[in-house]
Amino acid sequence: MKVLTAYIWMNTKTERAYINITPKVEELVRKSGVKEGFCLVNPMHITASVFINDNESGLHADFDKWLEKLAPHLPISQYNHNRTGEDNADAHLKRTLMGREVTVAITKGELDFGPWEQIFYGEFDGRRRKRVLVKRIGE
Amino acid sequence: MKVLTAYIWMNTKTERAYINITPKVEELVRKSGVKEGFCLVNPMHITASVFINDNESGLHADFDKWLEKLAPHLPISQYNHNRTGEDNADAHLKRTLMGREVTVAITKGELDFGPWEQIFYGEFDGRRRKRVLVKRIGE
Amino acid sequence: MKVLTAYIWMNTKTERAYINITPKVEELVRKSGVKEGFCLVNPMHITASVFINDNESGLHADFDKWLEKLAPHLPISQYNHNRTGEDNADAHLKRTLMGREVTVAITKGELDFGPWEQIFYGEFDGRRRKRVLVKRIGE
Repeated sequence: MKVLTAYIWMNTKTERAYINITPKVEELVRKSGVKEGFCLVNPMHITASVFINDNESGLHADFDKWLEKLAPHLPISQYNHNRTGEDNADAHLKRTLMGREVTVAITKGELDFGPWEQIFYGEFDGRRRKRVLVKRIGE
Repeated sequence: MKVLTAYIWMNTKTERAYINITPKVEELVRKSGVKEGFCLVNPMHITASVFINDNESGLHADFDKWLEKLAPHLPISQYNHNRTGEDNADAHLKRTLMGREVTVAITKGELDFGPWEQIFYGEFDGRRRKRVLVKRIGE
Repeated sequence: MKVLTAYIWMNTKTERAYINITPKVEELVRKSGVKEGFCLVNPMHITASVFINDNESGLHADFDKWLEKLAPHLPISQYNHNRTGEDNADAHLKRTLMGREVTVAITKGELDFGPWEQIFYGEFDGRRRKRVLVKRIGE
C-alpha cells in the first residue's frame, strides 16, 4: 500500500481565478507509482475550491458571473462575517457552491477521467499564497 | 488490499433525469469482496452528477424546478459557453449545484448508509450514452 | 492496512444548527493509529451536511440567511415533497448546497488541514437523533 502527500502552491494575480491544475496532478499521480487507487485534491483554504469541469474559458466566465449573482460581493455590509474586519464573506459562499474537494479514481496509473473532465483550482479571495493538497492512496 | 473498477452506462430518454443507481452500486460492492473500505461513484461527464438523497419523486421534481430557477436554461444567449455552439451551459451549473461525486463507506461488505440514503445519477444534458465510474478500495 | 468505523450521535436543540465536530474527528483519527490515509466524514441523513469552513459565528449566520434565501422554508406548499406530509423539502435543498460529505487527508497521524479549516455538522431539520459516520483508511 502506498500513501503519498504533495502540496501545490498557488498565487493568483486576480481576486477570482479559475486555473487548470490537471497537468500538475497527473504528474504527481505518475510520480507516485500508484497504479490503482484514489487521488484526493483539495485547497487548504476556505475561500478556494477544487472542482472538475470543462476547460473552456467562456464557461469559466459564466461560473464567475453566476457565483456573483448567487453570492454577491457587494454590499460588504450585508454579511455578518465582514464585521470581523474581513471583506471576503462572499468568497466563503462561492467556494461552498463550487465545492471544496474532488476524489478521483486512479486506474492503470492514470487519472480515470471521461473525455472532458479537468481539475480546476477556483480562487475567490486571491492575490496571496495558498496551498492545494494532493494525496494519493493505493497500490 | 483490493482496488476494483467498474463502469455503469447511462442513456436517459429525457434531457434531465434523476435515476436511482443504488441497486447497481450495491451489487458491485458485493461482487468486489471488499468488506471494509470506500466506494467512489462519479459520472465521467461534466453535465451530470452523482448525489445522495431521498428516493421520493416529489423531491426530485422539486430539485428539477429549483435547479432551473437557480441556473435557467433559457435564454441560451445569456451564457458565454453557448457561443461555442453548445446550448448546455446551464447543465454545467446544475451539475455543480448537485455535486460531482460521492464517496461512501463500505462496512461489513455493504454500503454503510442511514435509513433514507440512496445514490442517484442526475442527468442535465441527456439523450446520449454516458458512463458512471464505481471504484472500490479496501480489504 | 487499517480501516476503522465510528459513529458520532448528534441531537440539535434547534431546527438548524452549525456545530464544530473537528475535536471529535481529530480524536477518532488519533485513536485509529492511521498515520497516512483518508478520513471520510458524512451525515447518515439526507437533511444534514458535513462541510469544511471557518469557525466564525458571523459566517455561520451568513450561511443560514443565504441558505434560506436560495432555498426558503416557506411557503411549505411550494414543494412537491411536502405533499407526503413532510415540511422539510427545503432542508434537502439546503443540505445539497452545503454538500454531503468531506474526505480529509491524514498525514503524520493528524488531519492535514490548512490554518482555518474546521469540520462542521450542518443540521437543517433538527431536534432529533442523527448519526455522523467517520471512516478512516490507511496505514
